[in-house]
Amino acid sequence: MSTLYVTGIGPGSDAFLTNEARTVIEQADVICGYTLYVDLLRSRYPDKEFITTPMRQEIERCRMAMEAASSGRTVAMVCSGDAGIYGMAGPLLEMNGRYPDVDIQIVPGITAAVSGAAVLGAPLMNDFCVISLSDLLTPWPVIEKRLRAAAAGDFCVCIYNPMSKKRPNHLAKACAILMETKPADTVCGWVRNIGREGQESEILTLGELADAQLDMFTTVFVGCSETRVLNGRMVTERGYEVRK
Amino acid sequence: MSTLYVTGIGPGSDAFLTNEARTVIEQADVICGYTLYVDLLRSRYPDKEFITTPMRQEIERCRMAMEAASSGRTVAMVCSGDAGIYGMAGPLLEMNGRYPDVDIQIVPGITAAVSGAAVLGAPLMNDFCVISLSDLLTPWPVIEKRLRAAAAGDFCVCIYNPMSKKRPNHLAKACAILMETKPADTVCGWVRNIGREGQESEILTLGELADAQLDMFTTVFVGCSETRVLNGRMVTERGYEVRK
Repeated sequence: MSTLYVTGIGPGSDAFLTNEARTVIEQADVICGYTLYVDLLRSRYPDKEFITTPMRQEIERCRMAMEAASSGRTVAMVCSGDAGIYGMAGPLLEMNGRYPDVDIQIVPGITAAVSGAAVLGAPLMNDFCVISLSDLLTPWPVIEKRLRAAAAGDFCVCIYNPMSKKRPNHLAKACAILMETKPADTVCGWVRNIGREGQESEILTLGELADAQLDMFTTVFVGCSETRVLNGRMVTERGYEVRK
Repeated sequence: MSTLYVTGIGPGSDAFLTNEARTVIEQADVICGYTLYVDLLRSRYPDKEFITTPMRQEIERCRMAMEAASSGRTVAMVCSGDAGIYGMAGPLLEMNGRYPDVDIQIVPGITAAVSGAAVLGAPLMNDFCVISLSDLLTPWPVIEKRLRAAAAGDFCVCIYNPMSKKRPNHLAKACAILMETKPADTVCGWVRNIGREGQESEILTLGELADAQLDMFTTVFVGCSETRVLNGRMVTERGYEVRK
């Protein structure tokens, strides 16, 4: 029985790598992942074998990792953020039935909802939803239903994949749906390149967010009725009587 | 200007501490936190000053941390999990107006939604909600509204604080509300003492979850219509055509 570790490495820099993730990467025979992330590890571990595939070839990447593990090597599949939130943990577990000799272990990592929130302040201090606006794997009507439900529940909403070249209007459409219920002056924020060179962020209103030109490296936060701007930070108040 | 770092330390053991969190703790003059967590650090850092308060005295703890930072010392306020998800980042930022000489920096950590999901499999592979069943700071009718909205949106739901001695019926009430919409055979799971000695977990149905006797050290996961049990793991499928 060989082990395939599916490992979140956080938002990019070493700062947010956990001890467990580092141990798993150091002890693996084979490191597997999206070309861009894995290239950062090549120079540090010259003796390891590397398996990479570009974007959109996630399932092929999973198959290659499974084959490597099935042949008896210890494999670390690395994912940015957390492996279990829009990462590779799910497809690998789905594939496990065909590779019953591979033991899959999931190693948690810092996902963008958590790392991006820390940049803006404390927007997720109370109940929240995480929604991806990518309709590659989820039909757009389902995404719309979830946006409406999130607004009806007065949740804070963290949005992954807010827009891309092929989906330039998704964020504007999502904001319009949220504004059916949430006021246009709801406090929002976005963070780009979290924890990496060129990190930038902005706090703005939901009305302004609808016109923002962002990209797939950006994570968006939409406040709830308790979200405020305090000293330039986005903060969702949680009922503590702090300022009395 | 002195700095107060609000630092998530993950679910408990060193395994899930990030590099950044360890650096912040090592460089701080003062470590502040809930008695139980901070006691684990005392023996390791005998030269540091420690400030602790028991449960339910969070705001007093924040004031003491602010006073220490305001006096010119570097302070690390440690929180289990992530500081920005039901942690101390929010109340400290709310309090910042009264201590304008303190620079507050939030250091993200592995929250129980992420670490618990990794134990069960990959339950949060698609859009999800995080809801706390504690009505200490949020009125119960608001929690009910959010549970109904989460079910209406076919979200996976991660539940914090599912029950306690003072709230023995909250989880059963929450399950009843979710079952107004979600089928009773919806795949669910719970994890207790994540990443710590005595970790245990179970995968069960929503109907069975309604009768489960859990506690405040447990995190609960309720699946969506795409959640399955595969090889004993709880997995939310995300539309990849993996098993063809």
